[in-house]
Amino acid sequence: MKELQERIRQEGQILSEKVLKVDSFLNHQVDTGLAVEIGKEFARLFAHEKITKVLTIEASGIQFAMATGIALGVPFVYAKKKKAITQGDVVYAASVHSFTKQETYQVTIVQSYLNKEDRILIVDDFLATGAALVGLADIVKASGATLVGVGCVIEKTFQEGRGLLEERQIPIQSLARISSMSPGHVDFIEETPLIPSLVTVASGNEDSPC
Amino acid sequence: MKELQERIRQEGQILSEKVLKVDSFLNHQVDTGLAVEIGKEFARLFAHEKITKVLTIEASGIQFAMATGIALGVPFVYAKKKKAITQGDVVYAASVHSFTKQETYQVTIVQSYLNKEDRILIVDDFLATGAALVGLADIVKASGATLVGVGCVIEKTFQEGRGLLEERQIPIQSLARISSMSPGHVDFIEETPLIPSLVTVASGNEDSPC
Repeated sequence: MKELQERIRQEGQILSEKVLKVDSFLNHQVDTGLAVEIGKEFARLFAHEKITKVLTIEASGIQFAMATGIALGVPFVYAKKKKAITQGDVVYAASVHSFTKQETYQVTIVQSYLNKEDRILIVDDFLATGAALVGLADIVKASGATLVGVGCVIEKTFQEGRGLLEERQIPIQSLARISSMSPGHVDFIEETPLIPSLVTVASGNEDSPC
Repeated sequence: MKELQERIRQEGQILSEKVLKVDSFLNHQVDTGLAVEIGKEFARLFAHEKITKVLTIEASGIQFAMATGIALGVPFVYAKKKKAITQGDVVYAASVHSFTKQETYQVTIVQSYLNKEDRILIVDDFLATGAALVGLADIVKASGATLVGVGCVIEKTFQEGRGLLEERQIPIQSLARISSMSPGHVDFIEETPLIPSLVTVASGNEDSPC
């Protein structure tokens, strides 16, 4: 997604070879127009999958799950990181280690919000270590629902996340795939389209004989 | 907001005289269509205020801040509950006690995302004890930005939140004001419009001589 990649180049702050800060437009202050476009792009990429529900994890996945849910006309569910006293139901749970916060926490989803008939798209802001996404994927599997894929806004391809999801045969689409970064410099690589018909749409008509 | 009040009556679970659970459609599983309408309603109620930014607190305020930001065509900022290692900037901070989670936590906002020129609308899912909203209001004051008001999806009028905000002369608009509740029963009271011209729009033409 060109617009997103340009914003990362312009506004992203690279704190180290592994840590990218995008909180001026994605996950602290949020450019709502860009978030809406990100939601439309996930909806387009997975349009063939008859998705019934979008799933994410609090907090920074919510704006993108919301945008994707709006674009698809379906509800979304966000996994919670702690059990509140109003959350008294039977839950699915998974343990997740956060790279950015250096802590392990429990994520939970009330069981009645994931059904066997559901076709789930997981959406999140980052694919890096993959810990949160693997936790969500395990929860979807436990629920008996179908996981149609994972959509990530930014992927750090040099971390292990994609590999962990691919081991589970989960289709992935990332909108900005960073292959390497250093202060002042970001390299992106292209995503592989899920189905051949999307190649033309994704790359435009630059190579067309017309 | 009639649609919202009906959904609370139909799907809200009243766990005690003080605890209302709405996580099937508002703050765990989210009805994106309803959330979009809630955002449009906040945008309408504060349309005269030339808002430049919507402010909320993670996690359950995000979907409503997003919807309101979309409706107003402005960005939103969400206060974070813990300082992540990617958040290295100078922050505004406030201490907040959570009634539902029975814990006190620190909320922070990177200072560069609130400017003196900003006209801020705070949005959240619940107005109950008011702790989170007072914390956000104090942060806005510290930043020098103008706080134009607070929009709450659900208010529990029998708790102290509104009083604490009114002491600070902050205009409040709640979309569903619960005066009392018990298992199987919810009573609502009407909100007072901010400006007289909104009375007609809000109540329709039932009393019109036409």
